[in-house]
Amino acid sequence: MKKVNIPKGTRDYSPDAMARRRYIFSTIEDVFRLYGYQPIETPAMENLDTLLGKYGEEGDKLLFKILNSGDFLSGVGDDQLHRGNIARLSTQISEKGLRYDLTVPFARYVVQHRNEINFPFKRYQIQPVWRADRPQKGRYREFYQCDADIIGSRSLLNEFELIEITDMVFERFGMNIDIRINNRKILAGIAEVIGERDRLTDITVALDKIDKIGTDKVNEELRSRGLSAEAVDKLQPIINLSGDHFRKLENLKNILSGSETGIQGVNEMIRLFEYLDNRDMKASVELDLTLARGLNYYTGAIIEVLSNDVEIGSVCGGGRYDDLTGIFGLEDVSGVGVSFGADRIYDVLHQLELFPEKVSTGTRILFVNFGREEEKYILTLLPAFRAAGIETEIYPDQAKLKKQMSYANAKSIPFVALVGENEIIKNILTIKDMETGMQKELTTQEAIRHILVANEG
Amino acid sequence: MKKVNIPKGTRDYSPDAMARRRYIFSTIEDVFRLYGYQPIETPAMENLDTLLGKYGEEGDKLLFKILNSGDFLSGVGDDQLHRGNIARLSTQISEKGLRYDLTVPFARYVVQHRNEINFPFKRYQIQPVWRADRPQKGRYREFYQCDADIIGSRSLLNEFELIEITDMVFERFGMNIDIRINNRKILAGIAEVIGERDRLTDITVALDKIDKIGTDKVNEELRSRGLSAEAVDKLQPIINLSGDHFRKLENLKNILSGSETGIQGVNEMIRLFEYLDNRDMKASVELDLTLARGLNYYTGAIIEVLSNDVEIGSVCGGGRYDDLTGIFGLEDVSGVGVSFGADRIYDVLHQLELFPEKVSTGTRILFVNFGREEEKYILTLLPAFRAAGIETEIYPDQAKLKKQMSYANAKSIPFVALVGENEIIKNILTIKDMETGMQKELTTQEAIRHILVANEG
Repeated sequence: MKKVNIPKGTRDYSPDAMARRRYIFSTIEDVFRLYGYQPIETPAMENLDTLLGKYGEEGDKLLFKILNSGDFLSGVGDDQLHRGNIARLSTQISEKGLRYDLTVPFARYVVQHRNEINFPFKRYQIQPVWRADRPQKGRYREFYQCDADIIGSRSLLNEFELIEITDMVFERFGMNIDIRINNRKILAGIAEVIGERDRLTDITVALDKIDKIGTDKVNEELRSRGLSAEAVDKLQPIINLSGDHFRKLENLKNILSGSETGIQGVNEMIRLFEYLDNRDMKASVELDLTLARGLNYYTGAIIEVLSNDVEIGSVCGGGRYDDLTGIFGLEDVSGVGVSFGADRIYDVLHQLELFPEKVSTGTRILFVNFGREEEKYILTLLPAFRAAGIETEIYPDQAKLKKQMSYANAKSIPFVALVGENEIIKNILTIKDMETGMQKELTTQEAIRHILVANEG
Repeated sequence: MKKVNIPKGTRDYSPDAMARRRYIFSTIEDVFRLYGYQPIETPAMENLDTLLGKYGEEGDKLLFKILNSGDFLSGVGDDQLHRGNIARLSTQISEKGLRYDLTVPFARYVVQHRNEINFPFKRYQIQPVWRADRPQKGRYREFYQCDADIIGSRSLLNEFELIEITDMVFERFGMNIDIRINNRKILAGIAEVIGERDRLTDITVALDKIDKIGTDKVNEELRSRGLSAEAVDKLQPIINLSGDHFRKLENLKNILSGSETGIQGVNEMIRLFEYLDNRDMKASVELDLTLARGLNYYTGAIIEVLSNDVEIGSVCGGGRYDDLTGIFGLEDVSGVGVSFGADRIYDVLHQLELFPEKVSTGTRILFVNFGREEEKYILTLLPAFRAAGIETEIYPDQAKLKKQMSYANAKSIPFVALVGENEIIKNILTIKDMETGMQKELTTQEAIRHILVANEG
């Protein structure tokens, strides 16, 4: 037999995995909806000029490009059809690409539909994205993102609400998490007051390692990244801030008094913590000045969620961006959003055995097929089971009983109905509970009730 | 502002369209589940050698190919890098393609996972497919298919069950439909007994037009397609068969007595109609000897569903294929399946206004945001609404009342809560019913009950 397989970094989802993934998506979705977020979907393919230049140089390389249909060389000049022209050639022979994330397509959607949209617009989107990354453990070329964003409002109530949503989602999953927040304006303010405005990235990359390598090594790294000794000195009071978040923020206000942006960031965080401290949440929310997150489009609050029990990186993250749609020419639309990492959440729930036992909603009862006459009789009974909402099967072939029972077993069907000559005469069903092995003789109505009750239990 | 748009033949789905599409998918899915079908999903990308050669020459051209990442010319020899080599070149620079339908990926899935699968395997799959067709009204380059198949069983009970499923799905939609069935073996038998075994396609293409152009014109076309006068003569008793389906099938049995395949097809249809006649269905099921359907892999029963009220082509179709996995080297796995056309169903439901009014499950109540103090008070009330499962929003900004009310209107939010100084003192909410314009003063618990009851009504 020929060897068949699927592209590297992609996956098939079999029924068991599907049931678990749906549990994850529907849990997240239910919470999004409770807060008034509405779903949209965008096409898998976007025009390449929508995608190119939005994810940095590295991102452009990771875009899957779609070869133009028909004579894809027709627009390529003879002088261009050579190896020296690879990058250029790729955009000459392909004008579409697969979606790389949900954020840029959402920005494109907002600009394109701006006249139909009712702002502030709360949308969520759960769809696959594709990246030509090197496949490795936990990193796929096709994976799902679950994003919620609200755009067209600068209110910090939105940041608060998204943190509440995050807390509710993970509470429903039964996962213990920490929520860390920071603000890009504070980071910019810090870079400003230590006189290294252009080294924001170097500073955040180094600060991010404090937990791992300690203050001394971080200072060393900062110097080796070109920060002046004076700047590193000035940074120390910030690194060594202590106390609760209000205390830290008050101190920070003094330290950043020379930076308007910095002060604005501090005030935003004070406001956000006022909201948070008035609300009893399951997760703890901590101010983390070392939190930067990679994406450059964040301009205000940054949010990151970590599992307390499994070391797997962030399971959810997000932030405020003041100019997302600016890349498409629509200025002054501020937004804030979070994105849940379905694959990592799956791994955590799996590892901690947190998936609910009844996550599968497969067949509840299988009728064994003993022969023509029995089959005919059974077919008159099935509609009542299905009308009661019970997933019901009859084995399609008159196979050996053992084969039919092992089919039920493999599919984890909890009840099997045995209907032979005897049952037909007595107008009853013999119902076998596959877990206990017990058999009961029941009327059709009794059997339906029996299964419905078992389903609730 | 730059003009942004999406690739030709693709669509964005806004919240209203999403709600309607979900209604369609979940209705179909609920019925699939009631019959024990389980969901799977496969990757958007398949290896090109999985897809090529499975849809005919025309189909190969309509595949969207994905340009290899990195230096896609590295495997192309200098002598091959020219325009004369387009088709070959396309498979040298791309090794993956987007899924063209759900059937071939399913066949690939079955072969790849054959050792984990519990046969007979009932699976359903609802995913988008992509075709580089010329976009036109009702034809898209990205569209969803909803397929249910059972494979690993030759029992005609499966055909019957899929017809039952079809009936139940369209009954739930409130759509009036006709189900037409035929059998490929009968068509082969007819071609055989009239001595034109190789002209099966010509015969079925012509027969398919009988309703439109009448018997005479069909006979003319058959002759022009190269059928002998004798063959056309022999075909007449078949074209003119009358009576109910059993009568037709009995007559056909005589006419096809010289063809083993034909007789087998007739017997299969007799058996299928025995099942159908014992079951009270909403739709009528008719034997239609002119029904052929395009796909060449059908080998037994063929099923087609037409709307009675809207002329739009078939809204569902399917059939039996004896050798689907044979293309991947796994022989002797017979299957039968149906595929629902979500886009056409959408159009019919839309045109006949059959979408349920409450198909949208958006926000149920919006709290107007009058100011800081009111906001703070309202935030203590919201958790109770959400805990009761009520989709609840507070307007994030302290905007003018008119703006907030028009937000509620545009989002079709049925209730608005007005909580000002007066309400805070009295510890009540003023709830405005947006449809009637009536206002009521209610406690939080009363308001929650009020909304829950309205939701059921």
